Amino acid sequence: MLELYHAEPVANSMKPLICLKEKGLDFVSHYVDLLRFEQHDPAFVKINPNGQVPVLVHDGAVITESTVINEYLEDVFPEVPLRPADPVARARMRVWSKFVDEYFCPALSMIGWHFMVRRIAKAIAKDEFEKLLERIPLPEQRQKWATVAGESFTEEQLADSRRRCGLSIQRMESILEKYKWLAGDEYSLADLNSYSMVAGMPRLMPEHMNENNAPRSLEWLARMDERPAVKAALAMPNKVPETLRAFGA
Amino acid sequence: MLELYHAEPVANSMKPLICLKEKGLDFVSHYVDLLRFEQHDPAFVKINPNGQVPVLVHDGAVITESTVINEYLEDVFPEVPLRPADPVARARMRVWSKFVDEYFCPALSMIGWHFMVRRIAKAIAKDEFEKLLERIPLPEQRQKWATVAGESFTEEQLADSRRRCGLSIQRMESILEKYKWLAGDEYSLADLNSYSMVAGMPRLMPEHMNENNAPRSLEWLARMDERPAVKAALAMPNKVPETLRAFGA
Repeated sequence: MLELYHAEPVANSMKPLICLKEKGLDFVSHYVDLLRFEQHDPAFVKINPNGQVPVLVHDGAVITESTVINEYLEDVFPEVPLRPADPVARARMRVWSKFVDEYFCPALSMIGWHFMVRRIAKAIAKDEFEKLLERIPLPEQRQKWATVAGESFTEEQLADSRRRCGLSIQRMESILEKYKWLAGDEYSLADLNSYSMVAGMPRLMPEHMNENNAPRSLEWLARMDERPAVKAALAMPNKVPETLRAFGA
Repeated sequence: MLELYHAEPVANSMKPLICLKEKGLDFVSHYVDLLRFEQHDPAFVKINPNGQVPVLVHDGAVITESTVINEYLEDVFPEVPLRPADPVARARMRVWSKFVDEYFCPALSMIGWHFMVRRIAKAIAKDEFEKLLERIPLPEQRQKWATVAGESFTEEQLADSRRRCGLSIQRMESILEKYKWLAGDEYSLADLNSYSMVAGMPRLMPEHMNENNAPRSLEWLARMDERPAVKAALAMPNKVPETLRAFGA
């Protein structure tokens, strides 16, 4: 049996959701409500000691980290292949996915924490917030919550993150000048791993993703939006109020 | 034909060097002298636009990123398998390698830049240094060079990196309480990907890696040191003067 612990269909939760839908795999969906801090609940921390979504549980085996989960799904269910057969294209798929994980996503995430998570943190009474902080397993995550509840990131840090997001889209654009998809001529994990990060860019940072400076990335996004698997993933539950939905679709 | 562009057998260059030796693959070695900034040389930047080692060239195809290079070698030369057959162990291999890339290595790298690269940067005349900076393709790399040539990292940043290195060894220790190797009972890319980062720890940060708090990690390191492939990789050229060798073996 396949079970996925995930939040709303954005950010890292979106990656295995699209992958499972592309492969047509049945799974039990466990919605982890991040606005209620369920990811830090002792019952969930027992499953993933890092207190983070998504988590795949396959016949009892726990797999964490969205990029690794998608490689795992590919290893175990290769019937609808999402990893190119050509090893050079496969390496391009991994280089791009790694770039998204290490560079693009953290930059975009800082913007998200500043504009969205900050509003959530500010809405919580101080003593209740202290208690929530104590439950967070990773010191770096605890630090981020404390940062946005306080002075938040500096203007300089936010500007640098925006610069990185712009550079990420330009790197994407230069790949799409050569290939139809991000790992080459075949649709792959490289594409679905980046969908949710790229989807919000035209609205959040139109200066970095518009018809003039990123036409191929916009075409790529339109093609992604049309995929039945992406539509099915986007139709998954989303308990985030409309007013707080800064990211994703 | 396999060609590897690499520096001395430490840090990320060490990862494909061990992998190639484990698999017994012949390759043409191209030593890129980081102390002479050959990684930013236009001829090398033509091969890897990021201006970073290691780079694998296989029959003309360029593969970058040490972790991805090792997965590529596994995809193309699976004869001596270094990826566990069990997909759950394979996921553990990837989660650990990802943790080293995203958390342990950047923390350790900051210490290395502060103690070693800083001395190199300081030894260069100012106008020559400006010219070198201009050649660096990645803005983040340029920023690091400028940082260590100037005030360097703050005491607070360095202390935080040391804390992260300590936490990394504790995470390693907790895995080795359950398994013989870092992905499970089989030696894998998870082990060889971390060798060079862990090898310097007992000497650089004995407070974080000693007989009392990391006995299993020390045993693991002793077993790694005995592997013929590790010895062969360590015997590769190293043009770094003894006095500057802070890291690795």
